[in-house]
Amino acid sequence: MQIIPFPARSDWHGLLARPMQSSAQIEGIVTPILEQVRTRGDAALIELTARLDKVDLSAKGLAVSPDEIDAAEAQLSDELKAAIRQAYRNIRLFHEAQQQPVQKIETMPGVTCWRKSVAIDKVGIYIPGGTAPLFSTVLMLGVPAQLAGCREVVLCSPSNHPAIYFAAKLVGVTKVFRIGGAQAIAAMAYGTDTIPQVFKIFGPGNQYVTTAKVLVSKEGTAIDMPAGPSEVAVYADDTAVPAFVAADLLSQAEHGADSQVILVSTSKKLLASVNLVLDSQMSRLPRRELAAKAIENSKAILVDTHADAVDLLNQYAAEHLILSVANAESVADEITNAGSIFLGNYTPESAGDYASGTNHTLPTNGFARAYSGVSLDSFVKKITVQNITKEGIKHVGPVVEVMAEAESLEAHKRAVSIRLASLEG
Amino acid sequence: MQIIPFPARSDWHGLLARPMQSSAQIEGIVTPILEQVRTRGDAALIELTARLDKVDLSAKGLAVSPDEIDAAEAQLSDELKAAIRQAYRNIRLFHEAQQQPVQKIETMPGVTCWRKSVAIDKVGIYIPGGTAPLFSTVLMLGVPAQLAGCREVVLCSPSNHPAIYFAAKLVGVTKVFRIGGAQAIAAMAYGTDTIPQVFKIFGPGNQYVTTAKVLVSKEGTAIDMPAGPSEVAVYADDTAVPAFVAADLLSQAEHGADSQVILVSTSKKLLASVNLVLDSQMSRLPRRELAAKAIENSKAILVDTHADAVDLLNQYAAEHLILSVANAESVADEITNAGSIFLGNYTPESAGDYASGTNHTLPTNGFARAYSGVSLDSFVKKITVQNITKEGIKHVGPVVEVMAEAESLEAHKRAVSIRLASLEG
Repeated sequence: MQIIPFPARSDWHGLLARPMQSSAQIEGIVTPILEQVRTRGDAALIELTARLDKVDLSAKGLAVSPDEIDAAEAQLSDELKAAIRQAYRNIRLFHEAQQQPVQKIETMPGVTCWRKSVAIDKVGIYIPGGTAPLFSTVLMLGVPAQLAGCREVVLCSPSNHPAIYFAAKLVGVTKVFRIGGAQAIAAMAYGTDTIPQVFKIFGPGNQYVTTAKVLVSKEGTAIDMPAGPSEVAVYADDTAVPAFVAADLLSQAEHGADSQVILVSTSKKLLASVNLVLDSQMSRLPRRELAAKAIENSKAILVDTHADAVDLLNQYAAEHLILSVANAESVADEITNAGSIFLGNYTPESAGDYASGTNHTLPTNGFARAYSGVSLDSFVKKITVQNITKEGIKHVGPVVEVMAEAESLEAHKRAVSIRLASLEG
Repeated sequence: MQIIPFPARSDWHGLLARPMQSSAQIEGIVTPILEQVRTRGDAALIELTARLDKVDLSAKGLAVSPDEIDAAEAQLSDELKAAIRQAYRNIRLFHEAQQQPVQKIETMPGVTCWRKSVAIDKVGIYIPGGTAPLFSTVLMLGVPAQLAGCREVVLCSPSNHPAIYFAAKLVGVTKVFRIGGAQAIAAMAYGTDTIPQVFKIFGPGNQYVTTAKVLVSKEGTAIDMPAGPSEVAVYADDTAVPAFVAADLLSQAEHGADSQVILVSTSKKLLASVNLVLDSQMSRLPRRELAAKAIENSKAILVDTHADAVDLLNQYAAEHLILSVANAESVADEITNAGSIFLGNYTPESAGDYASGTNHTLPTNGFARAYSGVSLDSFVKKITVQNITKEGIKHVGPVVEVMAEAESLEAHKRAVSIRLASLEG
């Protein structure tokens, strides 16, 4: 990969820029698909699936039957089932700890406020088709939905891979449909005769799926987050193992030609060593052509100081950040922008992708500056509640009266005054 | 207000529908404004402010000076300053309790995962102009930004009300600019020579501001939430005080003709009594014309049973929900969709609008089905971190290898295998 020695800070912005996604053209394709599903429901889904995915669902129907889902288990090796169950257990452990107890706060005598977490009633999970059957994503989205207690969990996928069905059953998905693309997003956003409308849609997808999610989010269906191509940044020093670093870069690069890979170091020697092993590792990969394209666009950046490296990494705001450096945990304290951080030589990104317990649905495209990855929080709303007693309104009421009057909102004031008056005499 | 007796469930959807917002026309106006600010920065801001707001900033400049902000304190009554300080204290108390300690979870021996909360580095707060100077919103957005530790907190407002400046100083806003409208949102999203680019924008506004927020959010600037007209639903039984209920309905209605007000009861008598006092209370309000229009579009819905009332309220998903009923706290447990809940006869919505401690930036337009109101969470990202030891990779590694292979992601597998191999022999 290309080594960029000591770039000036003024060049960082251009150096770290992600490829621009042009959405206007894709919106032009996706908008009529949404409209067709909204107005004609199931019939449109069957037509679009025939036309776009070349799959005839007119006999089979949209829904995957419980029998089909049950049958998946027998098609998987015991080894794979055990691995999926172990990943399920780890993800569950980590997300369980995100549950927050209700804490009642008395802000003034008789004025008590709290928050309660309530599951989003109906959620949708999208799992793309394509070469990699992402059953791991079924776990990542299904486990927090299950922990939150979402009543309806709808899964749409054009893939019928048995591991997807097995994982769906494990996490308690309530309905599975064999549809994909922008039309699947539309179906979950608007609902059809067969497919329940949901309030929030999660999951990865190509540009059509992502654009569909952004468009329905403007109309009121929540989405997990806007998604771009996957990314990793690795910060390595001379304590890093070049062969491990190269393997981590390649595990990101194999996702696709548009994957983003950045390597940062203060050590010229480390960068050279990584480059040396990278080529030989890549040549042995089944997805070497995809990976080679991603590596071509990737950058190995040599910086002067540790402070420069941290600033550059925080400016980049990587989805995945691997810290293969001495004192990785204390370096992590300096990181303010990242989706998920991997510490030291024995924490590859792929551990988090599958089974360490953290969620792999993370903010890409620099969104880590403002967005968190998916967590239990993503499947609940936090409703605030307040209870004011007669004593309490005597304390807080006059404060409200003064402020409401200063904001010229007289009726706001009177809603308090009428209560205070009733308590007098 | 119009009493609707025992509507059929099939009619609820239409009955509870919010007025449609047509955004296409407004997007056509807002898009060129964003574009001008993006390409021409400060010059465009000065031109747009002159043209749209009829304010000449060419001499004064965009920034409000620290002297101007300091001078605000002397222009406010001691009573108002004390009230603002008390509200600040209550809001701070409630939001402080939302801080979450770091919890390290060992999902397998040697595999440790945790989340750390990190402030969003730069945030923007928008406060509209207009008749009501919303200094309360400066507190509601500024307090959690301050608690989170956001380094840069930019406030844009076309209002120069001293209470806004006083509140801004109290919460530690770092920069204040005298601009409004879609152009202010653009300035914070893109940055100009004078105005810092921020990563997330908060605050209410008219349809132009809201549309600008939605448009910049598609480009990567996060926003608090999509916003519609403010709403209240009141559920009242014969233990409610009709005059209090009427006052609460009016405090919502005075926000504007498009405010949404819904009253639900199983008691015909209560509905009639509320209607009786509503008119006389309204006639004495300064903003009675606005309120009357909102009340005209509002609905008093008579339902058969408590279960019907709860179902209807959950379907509506009100921004504010007042439960003026016996056993209000246990009824609140049945509520799954609402922004904020107010319990009993002495908890008016206006207490939460100003000073109880809860946040008043809440999901409107039914978004409470999937969105929470603003909280400390809104100003931080939660970054996951994982640390795997040599022992840990021996435990989790084989799980990752099996799953990665089943997903046909060979490089993901090898990033683990190469580490496991290094630990053998």
